[in-house]
Amino acid sequence: MNTSETLNKAIAIILSSGGIDSTTAMAMAKQDGYRLFSLSFDYGQRHRHELAAAQRVATHLGAERHQIVNLDLAGIGGSALTDNLEVPKDRELRQMTEEIPITYVPARNTIFLSIALAWAEVLGADRIVIGVNAVDYSGYPDCRPEYIAAFQALADLATKTGVQDRRSIRIHTPLIHMTKAQIIQTGAALGVDYGLTHSCYDPSEEGLACGRCDSCQLRRKGFEEAGVSDPTRYRRVPS
Amino acid sequence: MNTSETLNKAIAIILSSGGIDSTTAMAMAKQDGYRLFSLSFDYGQRHRHELAAAQRVATHLGAERHQIVNLDLAGIGGSALTDNLEVPKDRELRQMTEEIPITYVPARNTIFLSIALAWAEVLGADRIVIGVNAVDYSGYPDCRPEYIAAFQALADLATKTGVQDRRSIRIHTPLIHMTKAQIIQTGAALGVDYGLTHSCYDPSEEGLACGRCDSCQLRRKGFEEAGVSDPTRYRRVPS
Repeated sequence: MNTSETLNKAIAIILSSGGIDSTTAMAMAKQDGYRLFSLSFDYGQRHRHELAAAQRVATHLGAERHQIVNLDLAGIGGSALTDNLEVPKDRELRQMTEEIPITYVPARNTIFLSIALAWAEVLGADRIVIGVNAVDYSGYPDCRPEYIAAFQALADLATKTGVQDRRSIRIHTPLIHMTKAQIIQTGAALGVDYGLTHSCYDPSEEGLACGRCDSCQLRRKGFEEAGVSDPTRYRRVPS
Repeated sequence: MNTSETLNKAIAIILSSGGIDSTTAMAMAKQDGYRLFSLSFDYGQRHRHELAAAQRVATHLGAERHQIVNLDLAGIGGSALTDNLEVPKDRELRQMTEEIPITYVPARNTIFLSIALAWAEVLGADRIVIGVNAVDYSGYPDCRPEYIAAFQALADLATKTGVQDRRSIRIHTPLIHMTKAQIIQTGAALGVDYGLTHSCYDPSEEGLACGRCDSCQLRRKGFEEAGVSDPTRYRRVPS
């Protein structure tokens, strides 16, 4: 009998970007015995490698369903990830955590969590898993514990599930206090193949990582500190 | 000089469904001197008359921009407004307010407000106007004052505007304690042409109202109680 069948059969929705954090969070939900429903967004990202990685990860971890919601955020502008601003390169780690970076997408996690909340009600899911991280969070306001707590309070008031059924759809943030190295060690111990994931903000057409954007730097440093060999395919070997 | 130019030039984003409430809220924002940015959603509604009405209203009230965001909520299911469930007809008003109706769309206002919040950050808007109403709210959990307060708390924590600039994007609910009749009287006094609006959940192909769904009944009763002549075009004259 499959291990997951011996544990609970509750549903977890996992917000998946195809990166290290959401992939690890999904592997942890699998380990906890949840049925996995993976959710990604096509919101006008400048490249498609993120969506392809999310699909690979969902298959790899045995998600029952991988849903992509189309969301035309490019029409309301405002970010290096959707507009034609330049992605910052070779920044010091200190710079990444002191300021809110231009790669901040206005209200992004709020939008993603809201749509996940809708799907959770429809599915009768127990939890929404989001791989936010307050350690390496790169200055994003919507990755902090107080933000998540506010969303939980909102979710309980916003839904039929919360108001009529008096059941809380939990916003679960298993990585929130972990370093990138701890995240990678956790996933590696659960058998995650990080070669399937994608983190780079500015990949080549074939999906090779630049090695220099904030996301690449945090990822590379994470593998080094974790003592796990880095399966990332870079455009050139990073110095 | 235009009156609105003599007042403030702050931006208000108005969530517009093309119905009576959001149209009245937009007229009130215009009266308050705001620059109007109208926001509607194409979320797989079963009919398109709502979007057409929102466009007519934006033009009528002189919105600077009317933005439609495409949002594939039909893919995550769950409502009479997007699925092929039957819209309830001829219900008593008591039934409308005691239960959460099947026309409830999971987390809908949360999703709409989240996207409005993103746009508000990009535009530097002062407020988001939503025409929710706790009197005739038909049992929707996400139309209550405590829900709006929770979203405000979230918005202040979620955004660069709130966290870095220490500026609150206000969630403004001018109709929350008004009856439908008061709403209609307010709009009529501001010169709103309600003949441009659409409320029916189950219109004919040409957009004529059924007169029998919850929304039609509340609308019709509102005009009667307001003593304002009802410009709605019904499929047949309601009994």
